[in-house]
Amino acid sequence: MSSNRPSLPKGTRDFSPIEMVRRNYIFDTIKKVYKKYGFQQIETPAMENLSTLVGTGGDESDKLIFKILNSGDYLAKADEKALQEKNANGLTKSIAEKALHYDLTVPFARYVVQNQNEITFPFRRFQIQPVWRADRPQRGRYREFYQCDADIIGSDSLLNEVDLIKIIDDVFTELFQGKLNYTVSVNNRKILQGIVESVGLQDKLEAIVVAIDKFDKIGNKGVIDELVRLGINLNDCHELMRLILPKPVRETELEKIQYLNQQIKNTINGQKGIEELEFVFEKLQQLGLKTARVIFDPTLARGLGYYTGTIIEVKVDNFPSICGGGRYDDLTGKFGLKDVSGVGISFGADRIYDVLLDNNLYPEFEGDSTQVLFVNFGEKEQDYCLSLLFQLRDEDINAEIYPEAAKLKKQMTFANNKNINYVVLVGSDEMNSGKLTVKNMKIGEQHAFTIEELIQELKK
Amino acid sequence: MSSNRPSLPKGTRDFSPIEMVRRNYIFDTIKKVYKKYGFQQIETPAMENLSTLVGTGGDESDKLIFKILNSGDYLAKADEKALQEKNANGLTKSIAEKALHYDLTVPFARYVVQNQNEITFPFRRFQIQPVWRADRPQRGRYREFYQCDADIIGSDSLLNEVDLIKIIDDVFTELFQGKLNYTVSVNNRKILQGIVESVGLQDKLEAIVVAIDKFDKIGNKGVIDELVRLGINLNDCHELMRLILPKPVRETELEKIQYLNQQIKNTINGQKGIEELEFVFEKLQQLGLKTARVIFDPTLARGLGYYTGTIIEVKVDNFPSICGGGRYDDLTGKFGLKDVSGVGISFGADRIYDVLLDNNLYPEFEGDSTQVLFVNFGEKEQDYCLSLLFQLRDEDINAEIYPEAAKLKKQMTFANNKNINYVVLVGSDEMNSGKLTVKNMKIGEQHAFTIEELIQELKK
Repeated sequence: MSSNRPSLPKGTRDFSPIEMVRRNYIFDTIKKVYKKYGFQQIETPAMENLSTLVGTGGDESDKLIFKILNSGDYLAKADEKALQEKNANGLTKSIAEKALHYDLTVPFARYVVQNQNEITFPFRRFQIQPVWRADRPQRGRYREFYQCDADIIGSDSLLNEVDLIKIIDDVFTELFQGKLNYTVSVNNRKILQGIVESVGLQDKLEAIVVAIDKFDKIGNKGVIDELVRLGINLNDCHELMRLILPKPVRETELEKIQYLNQQIKNTINGQKGIEELEFVFEKLQQLGLKTARVIFDPTLARGLGYYTGTIIEVKVDNFPSICGGGRYDDLTGKFGLKDVSGVGISFGADRIYDVLLDNNLYPEFEGDSTQVLFVNFGEKEQDYCLSLLFQLRDEDINAEIYPEAAKLKKQMTFANNKNINYVVLVGSDEMNSGKLTVKNMKIGEQHAFTIEELIQELKK
Repeated sequence: MSSNRPSLPKGTRDFSPIEMVRRNYIFDTIKKVYKKYGFQQIETPAMENLSTLVGTGGDESDKLIFKILNSGDYLAKADEKALQEKNANGLTKSIAEKALHYDLTVPFARYVVQNQNEITFPFRRFQIQPVWRADRPQRGRYREFYQCDADIIGSDSLLNEVDLIKIIDDVFTELFQGKLNYTVSVNNRKILQGIVESVGLQDKLEAIVVAIDKFDKIGNKGVIDELVRLGINLNDCHELMRLILPKPVRETELEKIQYLNQQIKNTINGQKGIEELEFVFEKLQQLGLKTARVIFDPTLARGLGYYTGTIIEVKVDNFPSICGGGRYDDLTGKFGLKDVSGVGISFGADRIYDVLLDNNLYPEFEGDSTQVLFVNFGEKEQDYCLSLLFQLRDEDINAEIYPEAAKLKKQMTFANNKNINYVVLVGSDEMNSGKLTVKNMKIGEQHAFTIEELIQELKK
């Protein structure tokens, strides 16, 4: 091996044939459910103008954006001052006009504004594409990963929220086959607003939401520490925590909602949030769920600044969130189109991949591609087999011939490694009789078939 | 509209729902055929280390590579000298370690070398992904476009070439439905070598091949001008052209090959090329072709430096190449793995898209997503329809309800624009009788159906 041993950029991966079969199974399942709910697929380019992407998710997000160097003599138009000061941050805009999208929501908002006259609203679109983030790579966190988004834009009906939660129910019922417990947590940003207002801290809403969002990771005490650091007195901290923390077990989620309602009934936002949440839970109760456990979780905040109503997150034991979403009232505002409400979810295909693998939940895929291999014994046999091979392919049977007259053992190993179900052996006897020797690799049995019989056997 | 009107980077595109349906139709057709021939899918990341990509296709290709700016303070490690001299070319390597792949062949070569111990050779892989090129955007030429590659690596059997040409035959027979003439031109780099050798110009082989490659665009005289510029005397130029130019019509391609064979029979490379070409044409004749017209074209050169054997190109009237490929003997050499022969083809999905559109060859897709829309007349009716809606979805019927009780006209326009086949109208009469009023939007007729009858009607 030469010293020139190739490698991949940190945080990126290749996908082998078996990994692709599994990933396509996940994508196809999600796609099928999205279509069942009336969603239509679009795609946007990997690269957007840098100006489209910056400033939509805050400074932290801006840092995660991979920028693309301008082509040609990019230094000719570079910011002279930044160049001399070696100010990388200041220089970037003048030498990198394009960047890779770091989510699918911002490109979708841009798409909606650019195509608003052609789109039929309410617009249900889905998008399954990779995104790129210059994040610190960790186990299960990559710099290139797929998102599977569905959004409904141009309607503030809460039926859309109901549809999205039912989609989650459909997708995981199919993928988990009822063998895995998962929880769909639902909250409403207006309830968080109501809680914060009822304690009189509305001017610190955003910071408090960010602190609460860490509840999962740093717990009760950690959140209080954060709140104190924000300058909130301990009494108010405890009052906030009292309202947000799960109450002693109640019979139903609707009862939990009603209980909180009593505590924040003097805030307009709180009331609106409760009302919206109730609608969603009532409809879900009426329609029923297949396997999803849907709960009201007042600690669910999801830091992202743009959520304004419903917030959704899906978890399965021991894994970070595998799906999340929510309602945002003004995503297209940045691009000059005001007051367009949207709500959406995003499945994290890479994490779902790991969950299914860890729990042995992939169905048995019928080989990854080839069903039949013709062994190659030499020129004459090869010529005889070629026309049979193409007969199988014309019947839509995946088949191939070993391209050389290699040793039988090598050819059988090839069939084994490629998970090929049937191996066809044709020597002079078979050529004379027209009866092919067919070995079923799974059960190890051999049978004599004419080509027509083999086709019948395979089409069973 | 605000001044902040969003736009896309030059040479990139969004794909709308109807465009996605058509593109998926092309991808799915190619995928299905690839699988039928035993190919397995892989994916590689969008970004590779810049060092992996440069120097594989010559200086011109290197210029087309989109480089990704390093994250963080990229100027801290920048090449000081290049920075001071404002030498963009010299600076790039030190501030951009990663880049977007500009084809799928180089990443595949890298993949093979990195995974050589896990791969079962001969390895038939396919890959359908976007590639990026900082090319001058033109009509039909984009900076982001999809390639659909299939390669067989680790076997020098010419049966692989036969398979690839049969794949071309299968794909275009299905996509063109026999309604479009297309030509698969085949040549062999060794024949070009033989021709050049027979005129005694072997030391100028690469430059001559590049000149011949332009035959399509600049014609006979243009090529001769180029050859003269290379310092080749006019006699030799004419001799080269005589050998390369199509001969007076002959009965079969094999006769054309035989004719040329007479001219270059004293060159070893030429003989080898003729022999290989003959094998491919003989096998194709034996197996038969569905709709492809396969010809031997000695002017076919395909400039790319790495081809060493068979060269393939597919054209349809008035369009640039829609598929191309060939054999290369040492693609993985750059990464330290020598003597691995490969052969592959690549379908240009974007051009095929245009060919099908221009020729009206897309099948009628059954709506782009939704089959049934429930009109929303208000809260009571909505509740009644919701459970029916989910009954349809549970039967795998794509359905939705209009999310608000908007005016009927607005809802019907929505159904029309979204190409929805059936609209269900439920008022108090329908709620009492359980007989839904169902409007078939295609033929304009209305029927009364129970939900079970509707399901039956839709499953027909």
